[in-house]
Amino acid sequence: MNMFGKPTKLIAAAALIAGLSTQALAEKVYKWKLATTWGPTLHPFIDAPTNMAKMVEEMSDGRLIIRVDASNKHKSALGILDMVKGGQYDMGHSASYYWKGKDINTLPFSTMPFGMTTPEQYAWFYHGGGMDLMKRVYKKHKVLSFPGGSSGNQMGGWFRKEINTVDDLKGLKMRIPGFAGEVMAKLGLTVTNIAPGELYTSLERGTIDALEWVGPGMDINMGFNKIAPYYYTGWHEPGLDLQFLVNEKKFNRLPKDLQQILITAMRASAYDMYIQNYHMSSEAWAKIEKEYPNIKIKTFPKEVMDAMKKANTELREEMTKGQPMLKEILDSQEAYQKKVREWTKMSDYIYLKDNL
Amino acid sequence: MNMFGKPTKLIAAAALIAGLSTQALAEKVYKWKLATTWGPTLHPFIDAPTNMAKMVEEMSDGRLIIRVDASNKHKSALGILDMVKGGQYDMGHSASYYWKGKDINTLPFSTMPFGMTTPEQYAWFYHGGGMDLMKRVYKKHKVLSFPGGSSGNQMGGWFRKEINTVDDLKGLKMRIPGFAGEVMAKLGLTVTNIAPGELYTSLERGTIDALEWVGPGMDINMGFNKIAPYYYTGWHEPGLDLQFLVNEKKFNRLPKDLQQILITAMRASAYDMYIQNYHMSSEAWAKIEKEYPNIKIKTFPKEVMDAMKKANTELREEMTKGQPMLKEILDSQEAYQKKVREWTKMSDYIYLKDNL
Repeated sequence: MNMFGKPTKLIAAAALIAGLSTQALAEKVYKWKLATTWGPTLHPFIDAPTNMAKMVEEMSDGRLIIRVDASNKHKSALGILDMVKGGQYDMGHSASYYWKGKDINTLPFSTMPFGMTTPEQYAWFYHGGGMDLMKRVYKKHKVLSFPGGSSGNQMGGWFRKEINTVDDLKGLKMRIPGFAGEVMAKLGLTVTNIAPGELYTSLERGTIDALEWVGPGMDINMGFNKIAPYYYTGWHEPGLDLQFLVNEKKFNRLPKDLQQILITAMRASAYDMYIQNYHMSSEAWAKIEKEYPNIKIKTFPKEVMDAMKKANTELREEMTKGQPMLKEILDSQEAYQKKVREWTKMSDYIYLKDNL
Repeated sequence: MNMFGKPTKLIAAAALIAGLSTQALAEKVYKWKLATTWGPTLHPFIDAPTNMAKMVEEMSDGRLIIRVDASNKHKSALGILDMVKGGQYDMGHSASYYWKGKDINTLPFSTMPFGMTTPEQYAWFYHGGGMDLMKRVYKKHKVLSFPGGSSGNQMGGWFRKEINTVDDLKGLKMRIPGFAGEVMAKLGLTVTNIAPGELYTSLERGTIDALEWVGPGMDINMGFNKIAPYYYTGWHEPGLDLQFLVNEKKFNRLPKDLQQILITAMRASAYDMYIQNYHMSSEAWAKIEKEYPNIKIKTFPKEVMDAMKKANTELREEMTKGQPMLKEILDSQEAYQKKVREWTKMSDYIYLKDNL
């Protein structure tokens, strides 16, 4: 260690000579624990908290050390909010829409069907009022919530059979979370959420007939293509954002510089995850084309897509009745999307149309 | 200050009692200067270094303080690389393609005509070998270069008259930097780069007939629409990335924790700028539609676009002759783009097509 950087030994020596306790003088080390919904090899989701913890440790010169526990450690993949709220964990990494059963207002901060893409949603978070709304919703749970990394635009999921009509969907059991799950339920599916580690077995054993997970980068690693070869393009999660949760009391006890280090590390690692998944998806997509000729890439027919859009619009009406906070969030997103989509169209969309 | 956080007074007292110099014990403060190409109100470009400096100061608890000098202070908007290299400034914020006259290999790290969009380019930087190539190019200038924030997809520029044929372009004097400038020169334009602060006057006085700057968020503030009402959609800078430059020797003298703080703050503020400009562009686009009915939004006709593409392909051949490093960079970008664009098509493009 550079003597002029942090002369801890010299400080300790001075303190000893002066008869002071070295413990009082040494810089306090904070040891935190973070619980994730993800298994230890679920890249890139698990990488967001892991990289965040590494950045924090290096930037704080070891004054804030965060242990990241994957779901196989704490055995409560979908219990993250409760564990952070209750203080068993100082932090969590999960997805906001997993808490829709506890608090419906947490739902829209992940992604919405037919909603915003990743840059659009981040613009809403940081410049369109999204962060303020998220703060208000999580205040009552006594936790802080921050963007935790975007998956980018997701694929619509894996099906055992081809979907040609709305009737083909009826009666299917499907794993699909968030608002999209509500839409599918309205179309006659039986909808469930299942922890990531149990998805493959559930599909194999027929507990579910179909599922959406993320995109090629993550899906191929899970092996879903072996059981359900029809792979549909997306409509339902155009920019799923994960979530860092922080116990409010614990956060307030950190010195200001460590708070800022934590915030910046969460911010950078969240963006990084979006880029990492973009890369992984592109690699996996190339692999699909070469190595998995049996996967059948499909887009839902117009009839099905129209039914989903109709169900989506009706659900927004129904679900916001008597829910002023949910209505405020959805209205804010809708107004922002309407404006920002015009720019997406004039920039990336027009450019891509000529350069595919 | 929290006694258990950083008990500097106690340390000083202990040191005094022990007869040691307080100076040797106090944490060393590094005072740095950063020069930007941008004027003090050129949002969001100027915000990337300003926010970075703020993050660094807070995270380091005042141990690394970076003064940001806008171009009106140092009077050398396009001399940033030299000033950082020479040590007059510790850091800079500019754009890599401004140095193409000094070192042609610096050109591709900003953006390329018909090249990658922002997430594609960041995936190339961080996962496709881009950072390694940039490191190798800047090594000989004894500076470190990092992504400094993307403008997103840029507009193709402001023209006094409508461009219907390739002949309409011939003889025009245009401000357009980077490889796109070379393309336009090949099509018969006289091409120049001009510091941002002089753009409006140059267009007003007829020193140039046309210019591209960034996009609606920044262009409207510059007032170009008053002189050149034809506003074209983009082809030439699909994801312009700005650049943080750091004097290598100065960087190596920082303690490890401050190095990591600096790197993370650059990384986060660069991503943030992309999102900020996305928001600003969307706001400005809505404003154009309402408040500037005289602006004529155009897309270059197919004949013109085809001529640009042809010139672009030919130029890549010509310019890489006898330039193995430039060839290596362009080949790396081209191969990456080919693969990643397939994913962009299956995800954001297909989604947007149905949701405009």
